[in-house]
Amino acid sequence: MGPQLKANLCGELRNFETEVIEKRSVVEHWFRDMFAKYKPPFYSSVDLRNACFKISPVDTNLFPAGFNNIGKDDRRTTVQAFMNAIERHCPHAETVLIVPENHTRNLYYHQHIGHLHGLLSNVGLKVTVGSHEDSFCQLKEIFFKNIEGQTISIPVLRVSRHDGSLYVDGKKPDLILLNNDFSSGIPAEYRELNSDQKLAPCLESSWAIRKKSRHFKLYSETAKEFAGLFDADDWLISPVNRRCTNVSFKEKKGEECLVRNVTEVLNEIKKKYAEYKIQRNPFVVIKANSGTYGMSVMTIRQPNEIYNLNNKQRKRMSKNKEGVTVEDILIQEGVHSFETVIDYNVQSVAEPVVYLVDNHVVGGFYRIHAKKGLDENLNTPGMQFFPIAFEDSCQLPASSADPDSITNRLYFYGVIARLATLSAAKEVRE
Amino acid sequence: MGPQLKANLCGELRNFETEVIEKRSVVEHWFRDMFAKYKPPFYSSVDLRNACFKISPVDTNLFPAGFNNIGKDDRRTTVQAFMNAIERHCPHAETVLIVPENHTRNLYYHQHIGHLHGLLSNVGLKVTVGSHEDSFCQLKEIFFKNIEGQTISIPVLRVSRHDGSLYVDGKKPDLILLNNDFSSGIPAEYRELNSDQKLAPCLESSWAIRKKSRHFKLYSETAKEFAGLFDADDWLISPVNRRCTNVSFKEKKGEECLVRNVTEVLNEIKKKYAEYKIQRNPFVVIKANSGTYGMSVMTIRQPNEIYNLNNKQRKRMSKNKEGVTVEDILIQEGVHSFETVIDYNVQSVAEPVVYLVDNHVVGGFYRIHAKKGLDENLNTPGMQFFPIAFEDSCQLPASSADPDSITNRLYFYGVIARLATLSAAKEVRE
Repeated sequence: MGPQLKANLCGELRNFETEVIEKRSVVEHWFRDMFAKYKPPFYSSVDLRNACFKISPVDTNLFPAGFNNIGKDDRRTTVQAFMNAIERHCPHAETVLIVPENHTRNLYYHQHIGHLHGLLSNVGLKVTVGSHEDSFCQLKEIFFKNIEGQTISIPVLRVSRHDGSLYVDGKKPDLILLNNDFSSGIPAEYRELNSDQKLAPCLESSWAIRKKSRHFKLYSETAKEFAGLFDADDWLISPVNRRCTNVSFKEKKGEECLVRNVTEVLNEIKKKYAEYKIQRNPFVVIKANSGTYGMSVMTIRQPNEIYNLNNKQRKRMSKNKEGVTVEDILIQEGVHSFETVIDYNVQSVAEPVVYLVDNHVVGGFYRIHAKKGLDENLNTPGMQFFPIAFEDSCQLPASSADPDSITNRLYFYGVIARLATLSAAKEVRE
Repeated sequence: MGPQLKANLCGELRNFETEVIEKRSVVEHWFRDMFAKYKPPFYSSVDLRNACFKISPVDTNLFPAGFNNIGKDDRRTTVQAFMNAIERHCPHAETVLIVPENHTRNLYYHQHIGHLHGLLSNVGLKVTVGSHEDSFCQLKEIFFKNIEGQTISIPVLRVSRHDGSLYVDGKKPDLILLNNDFSSGIPAEYRELNSDQKLAPCLESSWAIRKKSRHFKLYSETAKEFAGLFDADDWLISPVNRRCTNVSFKEKKGEECLVRNVTEVLNEIKKKYAEYKIQRNPFVVIKANSGTYGMSVMTIRQPNEIYNLNNKQRKRMSKNKEGVTVEDILIQEGVHSFETVIDYNVQSVAEPVVYLVDNHVVGGFYRIHAKKGLDENLNTPGMQFFPIAFEDSCQLPASSADPDSITNRLYFYGVIARLATLSAAKEVRE
């Protein structure tokens, strides 16, 4: 017997889900309208946390990695959705250059790039992989296992710029597909390209520019509007957020702001927990206002923990991906993860990750961690992945079946993920 | 062991296919451009004939039946493609009314309507089935087996018109999805609807208006342009066509026109067979210039057969679906079907039918007939259906594999079907 998933919803959230499933035509109609107004990102992934009484996105990534974790049965739908993305962003493209992160030794990431290469080739594009980074170019090629289990190598080409256009191997690709979030700043090469060469996602999607506080502000407005369609409380799907700038964990700067906001957020949560009679200990997550990969993220259960951080914790919170100094902090309501996966008698905390291409939910998987608690970040070393069976779900909810059917649950996950991606679409547009 | 398919390509056509597969990026780019210019039909199905040395569409249906034959593994892609069709044709739709053919006793057709209902429900639409025909409304409900094997009933509602809008059950559906080709004329109810109610496909798609001669003229132009991308001979994928009007088989009117054109078409075929050293007997198919369902279709091997038709043959050619008198005739190069399916030691002639929704190939099946020859119409009583394994094909050709791989063959079938659907898009637009 394979791993077993326990993903429950309860109380008001379960009623909300039931409404959403019953009124699917309202949901889909609303999303069609919204995505007609706000161009969906080329691709995205959304990390969710399901606390049974509440579900929330906690990270919306516009440079998703992990396409190697998309199940075999989801590949055809994914290819079809990439066709839509190309149609929407760059219909005249014949050639595409994938620009990956500078992960020279992360073989899982190479695996992802290989699968992304394969998916786009199946769309009918000529695909190359190239980088502006010396260290990545020195790899010369990356290796990955395709779905048939064969090991394939893809050359890594050097990206160069001439007269306002990017070239690899003397050729000028029609589309530059960024899988690099340029956390430490957007390299000059990629700025202000000639208009006959298209960049996707646009540079405004980079973590050098995006702020989580802005994303979650737009998400809370989006969630409010959506919940309003069903007279539901948007708190059920939306976390409380605050922001502190000019923080230095190393120099103990800005601690008062953090403590004040942590206190406020905890009080808001307590009020909501009282309203819904939730017998849980509230917690807050503080994280760098830009960046991903689960770096610079910390769980806070009491405000005064802020004053008592040890050196290791301070150091960890000070630097983000690529050594970027963290000064801007998001204080976010913590959402427990009560989803667990039981595999070989080991119970692990699970976090669903939903993948979108264009406005289509194409698949997903669970990030699981056997050594983390229900209120801890799972995006850390030791995490494992476990595919979500999206193939018979998502676009095919068993509408007549009971609300706890796994198919309906995954449809609801897809709805929450689309709300997050829609918020990212608004964010990048503005 | 299940049924085995033999689907070969040979000679120049095989070289053409190899080119198409190698230059997929050119193919897909061209189709993206074309379908941006010509709005793809909401849905369509294309009957193909594969003679090994030549492959051609022989019928392009804009009111496809047979969605019940779409394989389970193709359903998710089909739902996603319907989402695109709705986005393109009627983004604001929440409710859709399916208007079926007036087939009161054809349980296969009811099965199809049931599956179409299910697919559109999964898109997130509120779906009803209704008719303006008394006999169909008297059914009150139709029954079908869903993919889980449960028998489901769907009510059949009466369509009525008030003040320029159609209503069922007192409600006004946003989208009227026609699955009735209105062969015998477009009912007044459906004409000039208020603009807030959308009809798909448009009334110009009806067999009361469409002419096969026009479709195949546009197809031959489309095929010429496409073959030109590869310096290939478009005859390899396009049949020779002629037309005779004012024909009456019953009154032996217009026979000279038929004989002259049959002779000319046979001569053109002979020239081509000589050029490609094809050792086959050429034949011609004469068919009503409008209409479908394989009615009023006949194989002619010698021009003077026209003069010697017996009464039964004359009667069969005189009347089309719904008793429409046939006076307009298409004389089309016959394409042998050298595809066969062997099942339990019985070898049957097979004709692939490819299904499209929007511009996406979503699936297909083989129409097989154990009692028909290689040069005969298979769309007759006694035919059977056998699903094509599109799930691992079509959008996922095994690009590195050999040209005879079934995956590549089906991709090529999808290309030919898209050429036919693109021609229908041009036809309806003009």
